[in-house]
Amino acid sequence: MNQTRVTAVYLVETPYSLEKAAASIAGEQSTGTFTAVPGETDALKALHGAVVESIEPLEEVDAPSLPGAKTPPNHDGKYRRGVVKVSFPLHNFGPSIPNLMSAVAGNLYELQELSGLRLLDLELPDAFAARYPGPKFGIEGTRKLTGVYDRPILGTIVKPSVGLSMEELSALVERLALAGMDFIKDDELNANPPYAPLEGKVKAVMAAVERAADRTGKKLMYAFNITGDYDELQRGHDLVVAAGGNCVMVSILSVGLSGLTALNRYSEVPIHGHRNQWGMLTRSPLLGIEFTAYQKLCRLAGADHLHVNGLQSKFYESDASVVRSIEACTAPMFGGYATMPVVSSAQWAGTAPATYAATRTVDVMHLAGGGMLAHPDGPASGFESMKLGWEAAVQGIPLEQYAAKHPALQRAIEKYGKG
Amino acid sequence: MNQTRVTAVYLVETPYSLEKAAASIAGEQSTGTFTAVPGETDALKALHGAVVESIEPLEEVDAPSLPGAKTPPNHDGKYRRGVVKVSFPLHNFGPSIPNLMSAVAGNLYELQELSGLRLLDLELPDAFAARYPGPKFGIEGTRKLTGVYDRPILGTIVKPSVGLSMEELSALVERLALAGMDFIKDDELNANPPYAPLEGKVKAVMAAVERAADRTGKKLMYAFNITGDYDELQRGHDLVVAAGGNCVMVSILSVGLSGLTALNRYSEVPIHGHRNQWGMLTRSPLLGIEFTAYQKLCRLAGADHLHVNGLQSKFYESDASVVRSIEACTAPMFGGYATMPVVSSAQWAGTAPATYAATRTVDVMHLAGGGMLAHPDGPASGFESMKLGWEAAVQGIPLEQYAAKHPALQRAIEKYGKG
Repeated sequence: MNQTRVTAVYLVETPYSLEKAAASIAGEQSTGTFTAVPGETDALKALHGAVVESIEPLEEVDAPSLPGAKTPPNHDGKYRRGVVKVSFPLHNFGPSIPNLMSAVAGNLYELQELSGLRLLDLELPDAFAARYPGPKFGIEGTRKLTGVYDRPILGTIVKPSVGLSMEELSALVERLALAGMDFIKDDELNANPPYAPLEGKVKAVMAAVERAADRTGKKLMYAFNITGDYDELQRGHDLVVAAGGNCVMVSILSVGLSGLTALNRYSEVPIHGHRNQWGMLTRSPLLGIEFTAYQKLCRLAGADHLHVNGLQSKFYESDASVVRSIEACTAPMFGGYATMPVVSSAQWAGTAPATYAATRTVDVMHLAGGGMLAHPDGPASGFESMKLGWEAAVQGIPLEQYAAKHPALQRAIEKYGKG
Repeated sequence: MNQTRVTAVYLVETPYSLEKAAASIAGEQSTGTFTAVPGETDALKALHGAVVESIEPLEEVDAPSLPGAKTPPNHDGKYRRGVVKVSFPLHNFGPSIPNLMSAVAGNLYELQELSGLRLLDLELPDAFAARYPGPKFGIEGTRKLTGVYDRPILGTIVKPSVGLSMEELSALVERLALAGMDFIKDDELNANPPYAPLEGKVKAVMAAVERAADRTGKKLMYAFNITGDYDELQRGHDLVVAAGGNCVMVSILSVGLSGLTALNRYSEVPIHGHRNQWGMLTRSPLLGIEFTAYQKLCRLAGADHLHVNGLQSKFYESDASVVRSIEACTAPMFGGYATMPVVSSAQWAGTAPATYAATRTVDVMHLAGGGMLAHPDGPASGFESMKLGWEAAVQGIPLEQYAAKHPALQRAIEKYGKG
């Protein structure tokens, strides 16, 4: 690892040669502008210029992925794709996530020399670790707080997402807590709405959590959605901690990586990082950012838990992409920075086997909203069915076979397994 | 204007009927999940459900714009496009930009029912104006601080973007200030780098600005790039103000809209909002956000100046799209919230006529980096040529004709007009 440079890995598509496209990227994002200017000396370029480290050609295509690319004279009609690595001197921006993004993303997505650009990965020197301490709890801290070991942390999302009264919410949470649930989160649509302000919600929910804990001896983790403007983050966090709460949640793209960084400075409980809005940064295959790159920034900024969608989900994302995200999140970074991947979206007991088969890890949080709450025999059976699904998965027993002896799982299959 | 609902306007593409796609959007982002859950009553839906307000069919296409859409049984192979308006009860999230984004964007970009989704516009009730005061300076305040009326504010960007020593920068700024320049900004690549920390930069630059002002009687506006983590924003702002500086700049996508909101709470000088990274949110035509929608959020959050690219720029964006952005930024919002559109990228005197012809306004900031600094007779002539370009534009005189009597413009045309 080069400790004085940041390396960005891009998927590039261009009507020009890959060499010319790569040079445009390096020039635009360091010393260059559209015309030579006084002062752009060779010495300055040597000290501050970005450098094309490697170019790996891929396929050619007949049409541009994105509009607005200009074409060279005598263009052969081909658009060349390749993986291009560009390194930037760290001293151009320092270990600062906001300024890193201006350098490695910046105006690049708008260049006419490119008909496609996707940031695939980032290699960051240790200076970033010195500046950003990362998750305070991660996998180990979350297991300790929930008392759940050797299997995924299983939880649910409050549904309906919006509209429950505090009485209804409190009753629901108590019922789920008594059912043994490990974890519950607010929906990302529900933070601090006028009809149910966070302060009242924290009181109502924590009273339910504590009542149930007194009976079961197990205190579930509730992720309160504190997404809001900067000043609201601290206020929301402090409300949760003062009430004995043990997790806060933010929509990372709503508060920004710098919002997450700020929250991580004073947080006393794990931060549950939700990924909504991420689709617009990633669904166009030749645009935006691959989660492999983005999750590194989320971990630096302090996400103890990080949403990655789920296999067989209701979303567009392929299972292969979800698996890549889980693998990226569980890969060590600077020797640590462990975050717990959160698998969700149309999940139920039956999505456990494929998830385990593809990732071979139980260090995930597995969330099911409708997949537990709408279980025909109620949420307790929904929770039980999820545990059974993972038992079968880890033991390598086919789900149907395991279900023969376990009615909660059998009933889940009957309800959800017909899709 | 409905004061109790937010309306989002989407460009939608779907293999299903537009009606089904619209219903998916409304359900996903309010009370629904992938399966019916207890508690999602009709009364709750009536109070909290999103409502499809209108559907305007557009063309059909033969291939999906984005991957991962599922298709209905007996799919006819067509992907239907249309403009869909969906309204959301304000009380679901309140006047909160971060939570608004989770509602109107949220998981929508990932839905399998859609093969394309772009947020075109937002209609926001007055409650947002009560919560977010918007720009403190805007066009009027910026004109007052610069003393420039009746023409665009003309300025430049420090180039080379990175690598100048403080002595070189100070000398450059002094030379540009003595040349009469209205405005200079740091490059977005250059905020507070280790080789040139902001504190030293502010001192060096402001000394140059003040020295020149003593001689010319005109104090130029310098936008210091204070982009950084949350705590650095206030520190950077305070450094600038303490040194007599009169503008701060942030990369909005680096600090987030909530970073901008926070800065706007305590800012004592105009905030220059840079738009780098925006391309990834907008270059795929059937994905992301149209600037018409995004600029409203930037204005609410407090951007006194807002980058919009330029006509005939080095970027992919069409001139028509740039013109739409300028028109959007100059349209009144809540009866005010004026922001100054910042026209830049490969600009020079020769881009003034087209810009004025298309927008009929001089209430813009027009920035040229190389287009002034690399003028054959130096930056003072570069600045003069820009003024001349706008004089010709406003008076409707062809540029070449006006240049016959004005050598600085003639020389600019010789240098830049051959592209």
